[in-house]
Amino acid sequence: MPLPTDVGLTFIGTIHTPFTARGMCPRQGDVEDGPECRIVLLPELEPALDGIERFERIEVLYWLHLARRDLLTQSPKGDGAARGTFSLRSPLRPNPIGTSSVRLLRRDGATLLVRGLDCLDGTPLVDLKPDRCSYAVQARAKGQD
Amino acid sequence: MPLPTDVGLTFIGTIHTPFTARGMCPRQGDVEDGPECRIVLLPELEPALDGIERFERIEVLYWLHLARRDLLTQSPKGDGAARGTFSLRSPLRPNPIGTSSVRLLRRDGATLLVRGLDCLDGTPLVDLKPDRCSYAVQARAKGQD
Repeated sequence: MPLPTDVGLTFIGTIHTPFTARGMCPRQGDVEDGPECRIVLLPELEPALDGIERFERIEVLYWLHLARRDLLTQSPKGDGAARGTFSLRSPLRPNPIGTSSVRLLRRDGATLLVRGLDCLDGTPLVDLKPDRCSYAVQARAKGQD
Repeated sequence: MPLPTDVGLTFIGTIHTPFTARGMCPRQGDVEDGPECRIVLLPELEPALDGIERFERIEVLYWLHLARRDLLTQSPKGDGAARGTFSLRSPLRPNPIGTSSVRLLRRDGATLLVRGLDCLDGTPLVDLKPDRCSYAVQARAKGQD
């Protein structure tokens, strides 16, 4: 499966977590009460965070930089039962982008303190946006101004 | 803001919607009762869909191919009030990746019929995965096997 490169991504920052090896990362869904993590944006992008404090939940997109990209099927439980890559949330995928919905605890300049990440320390950041649900509520509130 | 390219994305398919111009795309959050849309995966990737039928909701990542990537702040309502790009779900962002949670209606080979998309017809597909909530339920169910 040699797939071509169609567009380029730019890393906009770095995620810092206590998980320094893949075996330490919690399984999906176990992270709501997990440790505080830091999302450190490139300093020159700090103006793009304006207004983010008003959202309780943020959607985070990141690049799973250690993941293989060539698997169409895989067996994450190691039980010999292969499943299609797109029916899994495994990091191994053609475009290894992880998405998480995190709780925003605090902003400190270009750094966000959050809870709810399960990725490795040093994971490159790709995007930040208000979580869908949180955003819909905000949009309605704005409409009533 | 000239940002470097750090990694390459590969387009894994194409999204077909009835929205053929940007002005036709519904606003975020209005799409749950929207039209049926088709997600057409590259035929050589079809094995990677194995097992996706068991999920009611799928997370879709796509490349907003017409979007500017150089805006740190923007005024989506055109009211002169600039807000940071990362506090908006606007398509205009350094890495213009859209995410949606869609309802999977049917699979037909390498094509998924879904409801809940708001992107332009012809939008390049980047990733598909079980929706977070849907996946957690499934993971628990599997654990009880």
